[in-house]
Amino acid sequence: MDVQRVIEGVLAGRTRQISRAISAVEDGAPQAPELLKALFERSGGAHVVGITGAPGAGKSTLTDHLVLLLRGAGRRVGVLAVDPTSPFSGGAILGDRVRMDRHFTDPGVYIRSMATRGTLGGVSAGTYDAVTVLEAAGFDEVIIETVGVGQDEIDIVNTAHTSIVVLVPGMGDDVQAIKAGILEIGDLLVINKADRPQTARLETELAMMLDLAPSDGAWRPPVVKTVARDGEGIDDVLEAIAAHRQFLSSDERGYLKEVERCRHRIRELWKAAAMERLLPSLLSDEELESAAERMARRQAEPYSLIEKLSKRFNS
Amino acid sequence: MDVQRVIEGVLAGRTRQISRAISAVEDGAPQAPELLKALFERSGGAHVVGITGAPGAGKSTLTDHLVLLLRGAGRRVGVLAVDPTSPFSGGAILGDRVRMDRHFTDPGVYIRSMATRGTLGGVSAGTYDAVTVLEAAGFDEVIIETVGVGQDEIDIVNTAHTSIVVLVPGMGDDVQAIKAGILEIGDLLVINKADRPQTARLETELAMMLDLAPSDGAWRPPVVKTVARDGEGIDDVLEAIAAHRQFLSSDERGYLKEVERCRHRIRELWKAAAMERLLPSLLSDEELESAAERMARRQAEPYSLIEKLSKRFNS
Repeated sequence: MDVQRVIEGVLAGRTRQISRAISAVEDGAPQAPELLKALFERSGGAHVVGITGAPGAGKSTLTDHLVLLLRGAGRRVGVLAVDPTSPFSGGAILGDRVRMDRHFTDPGVYIRSMATRGTLGGVSAGTYDAVTVLEAAGFDEVIIETVGVGQDEIDIVNTAHTSIVVLVPGMGDDVQAIKAGILEIGDLLVINKADRPQTARLETELAMMLDLAPSDGAWRPPVVKTVARDGEGIDDVLEAIAAHRQFLSSDERGYLKEVERCRHRIRELWKAAAMERLLPSLLSDEELESAAERMARRQAEPYSLIEKLSKRFNS
Repeated sequence: MDVQRVIEGVLAGRTRQISRAISAVEDGAPQAPELLKALFERSGGAHVVGITGAPGAGKSTLTDHLVLLLRGAGRRVGVLAVDPTSPFSGGAILGDRVRMDRHFTDPGVYIRSMATRGTLGGVSAGTYDAVTVLEAAGFDEVIIETVGVGQDEIDIVNTAHTSIVVLVPGMGDDVQAIKAGILEIGDLLVINKADRPQTARLETELAMMLDLAPSDGAWRPPVVKTVARDGEGIDDVLEAIAAHRQFLSSDERGYLKEVERCRHRIRELWKAAAMERLLPSLLSDEELESAAERMARRQAEPYSLIEKLSKRFNS
């Protein structure tokens, strides 16, 4: 890979080089640090929106309509669809690769499914770096879309400035688990498929949870109803995003959120570097294998082993 | 906490002490290593079944019926319901705490929702240690139930001997993402709500995927249809679990799988110990804060910073 050419291509907004750059950070290619060093100073210009929710909640459809509206307003939009199952499948969400055919010839839209395997710093790190690439390429808005509410997805959403949680009425009991977590990550709650009968009930439940949630009185996540399939309510979502953006820029909050994002990224890179360069030198594969075998035979327990090994940290 | 008393209580199978022990490992209490050292040699006796799937797939209902059947066969059953959103909500799945009322007075059943925050080694580590506690307490079967298909949940399911992925017909496009990942983690695929019209289609799709999957010819994950709500097909699930257990014990595979579980656990503990004891001494809070602030102002980029810091590993 000719790093200089890729850098120039990204800065000029050329799709082909943007894709190469994102592949490089996604795969943790040896050129990735050099690339990111050069692109970093040109980053920071986009408003990053994270969208999460359960499978089938309609995130892709919502994203599709958001892109249409933003394009109508002349904004350049990048979309990253993160598939947390891909470390195992080795692929990415198939549907995403084809789903936005109508934007295919529009250079103001860039859509990318991300596998985020093998990246320094885990599944969210590749996403963060891909945002850096898209920002350097001059996109005004970046939408990160991911499935689920596990730690990975929460990390991914936390790389955004504005986080949206998409809920669907009548999804069953497990949704309680999601609802308990969303207040922590959602700057904006979307009830999609809001033409379903259980909508009012979900709305009431969310309002109650928001009333109970600890708040500094500064930002109460608005609840927006959509029927994304029919494009209904999308303008309300955009308005709520704009309001949150305005809120962030209205005082020091925006800066503090950015510092938090940076702290998170440094810590991730730092951990990853330690994992990769430091730890193997302190515990060899042979030692690990032998310990695992003794543990499997119940001849040794892991907790004493780790205590003994930890002493190496002080040498 | 009187560690000796808790240890004796767990070994005697007393519910109250089991709960205290699991709380200790869940919270990463200072007594946890001492507790686990003592319990470890009495562990390893249960068959651990992991159940995962999207929210609303019916995992809780399926688990409930499995517990009923296993109890009917005189087996003692422990259930761990892991809520991956809880690092943020600080709580656990509300419904689980109340859902199995009918087992409440049965000492042969132990049900526990786990938050797994703050545990050494991340979200799956607490689960692994809780299994150790339940095994030491003499449970014959342990069921780990979790939501979703992210890395956390896959790690959790990988602490099981037999992993079940629960699917539902007609759940929408994102389910493709799940399906791509499940072949890697599912020893057994359950189509729940199999009275829905799209059942045959999902069945065909799964069969095709299984045909395409790389296989050493040894174990092809069976596809079992259930209507968990009505208790239909649960006996088939139990039979498939038994068949997989038999398969594991029929040659060296069971032992190798156990070694893999142990290797995973040691590596997790080792990483966690490094994070906790080693890394802070190499990067102070003040350094991190100052770096994050410069990065937020785009005065510094993180990749050079990490390169410089990594040199400390060689000192």
